[in-house]
Amino acid sequence: MHYPELYLKKHEDKRLRQGHLWVFSNEVDGKRSPLEQFAAGDLVIVNDSAGKALGVAYVNPHALICARLLTRKPNSSIGEKFFKIRLSQALALRERLFDKPYYRLVFGESDGLPGLVIDRYDTVLSVQITTAGMEVQKPLLVKALLELLQPSAILLKNDNSQRQLENLPLEPELAYGELPERLLIEENGARFLINVAEGQKTGWFYDHRCSRAQFANWSSGLKVLDLFSYAGAWGITAAVAGAAEVTCVDSSESALALAAESAALNGVQDKMQFVRSDVFDYLKQAREQNLHFDAIVLDPPALIKRKKDYKAGYEAYRRLNHQALQILANEGVLVSASCSHHLSREDLHEILRASGRHIDRHVVFFATGGQGPDHPVLPAMPETEYLKTFFCAVSGRM
Amino acid sequence: MHYPELYLKKHEDKRLRQGHLWVFSNEVDGKRSPLEQFAAGDLVIVNDSAGKALGVAYVNPHALICARLLTRKPNSSIGEKFFKIRLSQALALRERLFDKPYYRLVFGESDGLPGLVIDRYDTVLSVQITTAGMEVQKPLLVKALLELLQPSAILLKNDNSQRQLENLPLEPELAYGELPERLLIEENGARFLINVAEGQKTGWFYDHRCSRAQFANWSSGLKVLDLFSYAGAWGITAAVAGAAEVTCVDSSESALALAAESAALNGVQDKMQFVRSDVFDYLKQAREQNLHFDAIVLDPPALIKRKKDYKAGYEAYRRLNHQALQILANEGVLVSASCSHHLSREDLHEILRASGRHIDRHVVFFATGGQGPDHPVLPAMPETEYLKTFFCAVSGRM
Repeated sequence: MHYPELYLKKHEDKRLRQGHLWVFSNEVDGKRSPLEQFAAGDLVIVNDSAGKALGVAYVNPHALICARLLTRKPNSSIGEKFFKIRLSQALALRERLFDKPYYRLVFGESDGLPGLVIDRYDTVLSVQITTAGMEVQKPLLVKALLELLQPSAILLKNDNSQRQLENLPLEPELAYGELPERLLIEENGARFLINVAEGQKTGWFYDHRCSRAQFANWSSGLKVLDLFSYAGAWGITAAVAGAAEVTCVDSSESALALAAESAALNGVQDKMQFVRSDVFDYLKQAREQNLHFDAIVLDPPALIKRKKDYKAGYEAYRRLNHQALQILANEGVLVSASCSHHLSREDLHEILRASGRHIDRHVVFFATGGQGPDHPVLPAMPETEYLKTFFCAVSGRM
Repeated sequence: MHYPELYLKKHEDKRLRQGHLWVFSNEVDGKRSPLEQFAAGDLVIVNDSAGKALGVAYVNPHALICARLLTRKPNSSIGEKFFKIRLSQALALRERLFDKPYYRLVFGESDGLPGLVIDRYDTVLSVQITTAGMEVQKPLLVKALLELLQPSAILLKNDNSQRQLENLPLEPELAYGELPERLLIEENGARFLINVAEGQKTGWFYDHRCSRAQFANWSSGLKVLDLFSYAGAWGITAAVAGAAEVTCVDSSESALALAAESAALNGVQDKMQFVRSDVFDYLKQAREQNLHFDAIVLDPPALIKRKKDYKAGYEAYRRLNHQALQILANEGVLVSASCSHHLSREDLHEILRASGRHIDRHVVFFATGGQGPDHPVLPAMPETEYLKTFFCAVSGRM
């Protein structure tokens, strides 16, 4: 198969050659290959200004990221076989790393499938398509998934705001099978109920799994506070691992209800408390009431969604970490995470350093964590790295 | 107890207030408090230029780092009680994190004990004192260790080249008890023989323990190459976890002999090979012979010991990673580490990105690791962070 040609301006091939997969619209030689001639989702061969082919991409003439590379082999056809090979490679990596079928099966660009995220809950697949180019490939993708995995259901969540940048509708679609109202998944020896259709993102956050396993290793006997608990992943993991008491705080009633059900499922409901509250308010009250916890998990949702929110978001992370340290018992542990790509690892490091000094306590990082292995990082694309977690041991004044 | 006063110049208190523990000689107000009035190891109260006390430090007037803070409490006495409290805190953190007594018990500044490193091999303690200030405290330190841990032996290794900067002799000293020629330690379910007296550093590298545990999780069935194997920690761990074949390469005959003995101890000697060779030579030959491995561990000793070695060291890391990728099987895994503080995490990231592109293979990081939790990082002191490990999944051309 032969695709139409897209030409880059001089020197604009550099990022792609370094391993990145995106082309921005201002990098295209619009005289030689006007973007308007393409429909959203068309496949093209990307060429450098000298006419050397760099691979096959899909385009969206209306988006800032106007093309994303699918393969560096210019002669490749993007058909059923292409998807089968990519999905099989992604599956092989997960099967090597996990012994149960609960994981992020595809993590977009890192798995050579830009615009696609798939979470696997045993036989149910929760799919996020975020680009017009991937949307066009939907029939091939669904076919390949059915043949590779024989799932009982494929849900296209389609509720990610990125879809709006590509003029895609925000309507969920059940592409195959039947979706039970609730699913049961296993993680680190605990079981969790999740609501795929109504939950945040794909329904569950697999990305913190390894950090939660670390947390479980030493949370036995502790009084634990799980802030922004969502469906209780950290708190229930700690309770199952032997924590003495666990308090989950979240502003969502439905998330806490689900967490309470999961707690009961694991037989740890008697030592767990579920508090519906804004976390900032909770921290303020906890300090006024002189509450203290042996271990605090601070895992907020992305507080910096866009670059322009950086300043306000940084300040929110600073306040949260500062206030959490204030209600941490001596020789306590703070697990502080950020999933904001725009808050760097160095930023969170600095927030923790400064907060520790501000209240004159000795803070050390005894471990750091990131995305689990089902969220691999593509080294040339900083955009694929977003999660950072610091495990802080906190003593009194040194 | 009251110590003599050391005064800093204006604004030179900033680093200490941010959480760092070092004073450089050019930051001292030499008119007000001439360094020459102190003997190496003397205790002082450090004051800012306005006379506000910042804490108690020990000094070395002959060293570039002329003072290191022991406590931020200016009224503290540095006596037996001080050491007992510091050592107890360090011990409590390790006992929380590890279920067996094999770990780095003290990691210098991070544990509030500048100039001191102690590795614990059950009842044997291997101690590194790197500053004149800590050397003066030796009798108190040994006394506190005896009372806290009742060890069978305390060896002061004293072979660290940092001691020369402080005019300290490089002679080992058995401060207490008797040292058996070999010790048996346990790590991640495998057992290892180590030679504390003659081994590198304190005799064993506990810092990679967590990364080795990760490696063990998925090395079953693989053909593994362990480069710079030293006493076989990575290779034997993989063999015990079910690797099909393991080749350890090191230039030290005695390290390989110890590794072979440990392999036999774990019953995995039949699937292990020990090759005495320079690693650069080995990689060249392996490529000529068209050898391929499913998993390669590249864990060199520090190739950049001083800042001025950066360029040559960077190039050595680049060559090693590039050559290792060339003999890695498709869908293989490269575990690439650096313990050079001067090679940043970003540097190693970039080396792996560039090497992957250079040979046109798809490299992703599915995990990253650092120092184990017995080597905590003090956030204000970048000097306490040195180890980085990238777990790379490597496919063919994308």
